Amino acid sequence: MLEELKQEVYEANMQLPQLDLVTFTWGNVSGIDRQQGLFVIKPSGVAYADLKPSDLVVVNLKGEVVEGDLNPSSDTPTHTVLYNAFPNIGGIVHTHSPWAVSFAAAGLDIPALNTTHADTFYTAVPAARALTQAEIEADYEGNTGKAIVEAFEQRHLDYEATPAALVSQHGPFSWGKDAGQAVYNAKVLEVVAEEDYHSLQLTRANIELPQYLLDKHYYRKHGQDAYYGQNNAQSQTHAQHEK
Amino acid sequence: MLEELKQEVYEANMQLPQLDLVTFTWGNVSGIDRQQGLFVIKPSGVAYADLKPSDLVVVNLKGEVVEGDLNPSSDTPTHTVLYNAFPNIGGIVHTHSPWAVSFAAAGLDIPALNTTHADTFYTAVPAARALTQAEIEADYEGNTGKAIVEAFEQRHLDYEATPAALVSQHGPFSWGKDAGQAVYNAKVLEVVAEEDYHSLQLTRANIELPQYLLDKHYYRKHGQDAYYGQNNAQSQTHAQHEK
Amino acid sequence: MLEELKQEVYEANMQLPQLDLVTFTWGNVSGIDRQQGLFVIKPSGVAYADLKPSDLVVVNLKGEVVEGDLNPSSDTPTHTVLYNAFPNIGGIVHTHSPWAVSFAAAGLDIPALNTTHADTFYTAVPAARALTQAEIEADYEGNTGKAIVEAFEQRHLDYEATPAALVSQHGPFSWGKDAGQAVYNAKVLEVVAEEDYHSLQLTRANIELPQYLLDKHYYRKHGQDAYYGQNNAQSQTHAQHEK
Amino acid sequence: MLEELKQEVYEANMQLPQLDLVTFTWGNVSGIDRQQGLFVIKPSGVAYADLKPSDLVVVNLKGEVVEGDLNPSSDTPTHTVLYNAFPNIGGIVHTHSPWAVSFAAAGLDIPALNTTHADTFYTAVPAARALTQAEIEADYEGNTGKAIVEAFEQRHLDYEATPAALVSQHGPFSWGKDAGQAVYNAKVLEVVAEEDYHSLQLTRANIELPQYLLDKHYYRKHGQDAYYGQNNAQSQTHAQHEK
Repeated sequence: MLEELKQEVYEANMQLPQLDLVTFTWGNVSGIDRQQGLFVIKPSGVAYADLKPSDLVVVNLKGEVVEGDLNPSSDTPTHTVLYNAFPNIGGIVHTHSPWAVSFAAAGLDIPALNTTHADTFYTAVPAARALTQAEIEADYEGNTGKAIVEAFEQRHLDYEATPAALVSQHGPFSWGKDAGQAVYNAKVLEVVAEEDYHSLQLTRANIELPQYLLDKHYYRKHGQDAYYGQNNAQSQTHAQHEK
Repeated sequence: MLEELKQEVYEANMQLPQLDLVTFTWGNVSGIDRQQGLFVIKPSGVAYADLKPSDLVVVNLKGEVVEGDLNPSSDTPTHTVLYNAFPNIGGIVHTHSPWAVSFAAAGLDIPALNTTHADTFYTAVPAARALTQAEIEADYEGNTGKAIVEAFEQRHLDYEATPAALVSQHGPFSWGKDAGQAVYNAKVLEVVAEEDYHSLQLTRANIELPQYLLDKHYYRKHGQDAYYGQNNAQSQTHAQHEK
Repeated sequence: MLEELKQEVYEANMQLPQLDLVTFTWGNVSGIDRQQGLFVIKPSGVAYADLKPSDLVVVNLKGEVVEGDLNPSSDTPTHTVLYNAFPNIGGIVHTHSPWAVSFAAAGLDIPALNTTHADTFYTAVPAARALTQAEIEADYEGNTGKAIVEAFEQRHLDYEATPAALVSQHGPFSWGKDAGQAVYNAKVLEVVAEEDYHSLQLTRANIELPQYLLDKHYYRKHGQDAYYGQNNAQSQTHAQHEK
Repeated sequence: MLEELKQEVYEANMQLPQLDLVTFTWGNVSGIDRQQGLFVIKPSGVAYADLKPSDLVVVNLKGEVVEGDLNPSSDTPTHTVLYNAFPNIGGIVHTHSPWAVSFAAAGLDIPALNTTHADTFYTAVPAARALTQAEIEADYEGNTGKAIVEAFEQRHLDYEATPAALVSQHGPFSWGKDAGQAVYNAKVLEVVAEEDYHSLQLTRANIELPQYLLDKHYYRKHGQDAYYGQNNAQSQTHAQHEK
């Protein structure tokens, strides 16, 4: 069932340790088949060294396991909320990458301070609000997803143009048109968080990028008039992210 | 004598360089056989590249060498105090991992600022007080262990729920149900120390986790109602620490 | 066409990931044949793992593609401006190396605070001013090059003695007598940026190097009276940068 | 000539890249035969990948080359001054390791803040004063050595108990009973500089170690009453530096 998608999501999961985005196995990737309304996700508590494509668990958009002998990631309800709320995404990644966690623990957005950011994220990456005690006790992982969606609604953000969020006190989620692009976005987020941390320590000046520079860099790579890479006017792919 | 335990403790020692927790050979791991009341520990001053399981030294709970041609770690009296004071632990690790040392030198606890912390440590990881001159001169390594125990008593901490401490001016000790879990906890401590350092530089707001979030994350993984991983309602194992 | 130069520029490009100067493929190197007035540059959006010497694109000093099936780097107009303005340079590198980006995002020069800096850069490495909206919309990449040239003119800097600049909000460009030396200078810049960041956090004293120390270190390695390395009174080469 | 010493110094040089203490070839190690009054040192400007034991240059205590086809390190006069001033040392290392450089550029000592420091350095590691213009122009490398010696004299430091110094604006020198121990001390210095940087950012309290803790840790490893390692009451060796 969904063998091709399992292979793709398996490979995306295995990129996390290669890109230094996980300690131990603190991360998970999922990918969705929109036509069948089913996504596949890493099982909970399986080490990357032991993971096989056949270990991946198939889940429907109600968050119910459809196939698989193992428990799905404990973050499955968060993935379910995001797939339902963001209909154009094909893959989701959660990590505890340390620079993004440092901003999340501080409850701060990752601001748009340089063009590395603007190439992938059209705005600051929002830190969703902390959950209340009632939300945590009632449905922790589901409400985590709802807080992300709420942040995008309240700030009128486009989830395709800003394909990541921080969960306050916790860490980053990112997404993309498929699992591989979601992993790519997770890495960009971590790199930008590290750079921003140091920029913010170097100066107290307002160094947020002006809108016209965000426009330039973002649309140089995305949409009709993109001229970056070898396949302009197409959606960007992983390999095209050179500058 | 205790060949199986020696092999296990040997492997746990060899994880320290693999996990970037030691420079040169600045670290040691021990593991205990509670029924026999004997623990095995790395010999003092043997490089990891040269270490063999048969080099490990067997010590009793009075801190006396029972078997072994080499001197045990100079920190053996600290291990002895901790095994006596904390009857449910099966392994102990000491390292000079740099982020934890930075907090220890500053005399500061590693606060609970994110869920990576809460997944393993139910409270801040306490910095035990600095020793007095008299304590240092009388029994330095033994009093190091006593200062850790004192910190847990004075703050009414559960050593199983907070399986690590900092020794002020020195560095971290961690422990667990066995030597492997103690190493795992040493790595979590180092990762969290790095994240906390950066969070504390990013904001002056009070960002300590509320108790209900500590409860949620800690008990998601530990105890009767744990639902993380593949073997719920069991004690966590190394491989189950995925999120 | 220009097969030898392509090989040289290919090898210089491949040094970027080896020297930890790029994430994904965020960097590009070019090298010029001054007699023919043609330079070769990395194609846009090709992953380093897939890059072959024959993929490199040949461009003239008007910025027009002369040979090559792939689109050249989107930064080609910046390279073109620099080759025209700086007639003695033979190679140019652009990266998003994170420490240099942190200074660029803060809009700050990389100051001359230590002799590692002075060995390669005779002055602070200037941060060119941010572009205006009109400049960005009219000819973003070309105006990026012009802002670098303007910084050197306004500060009366010698581009051979200070072979790098930061583009504010963006990242570093460096150059040299050939592509290999430009990569070397890119690495020095990143190392110095990291060191300077920490020095600036450690003290508020004025720690800029005095002119006589800049003179000593720079001319120990460069020009007629150089006595560093095995080939004194010659221009420095990559291998001679030992201290 | 001095083939055994050349091999030993060659191996010590090759440890520098292995221990992440050099970028490119920015470092050099020497070792001395006290009976013959000759030391061997890395040639200037030779890449580590190309270095052979036979490339090492033999120099006498006047700083004159006695054997070798290559120019010795440009820092040879500094090594000469230190060998003459510190008669019990057998090896010297100079690097541009980045954390030590950050303190050197700030003109700050590396303070004694933790026991990792005290195990190797009995006091703060002094930052020698910056040289005057006259000193730089007259005999830069020789006066660099003299400023280090002056710092030890003025502060009444024991060069055997504090086997390293920073040269302000430049970087660290370290030494030891042989070249291998000097490299070991260079690594300890770099580790401690990193830890101290973070401790100093975490707190404004006075966190310098008390003298009795320096005594305890230093003499646990050094001198008559040492009890660390397998060969007590002997001078420490590289392999014995485990804690």
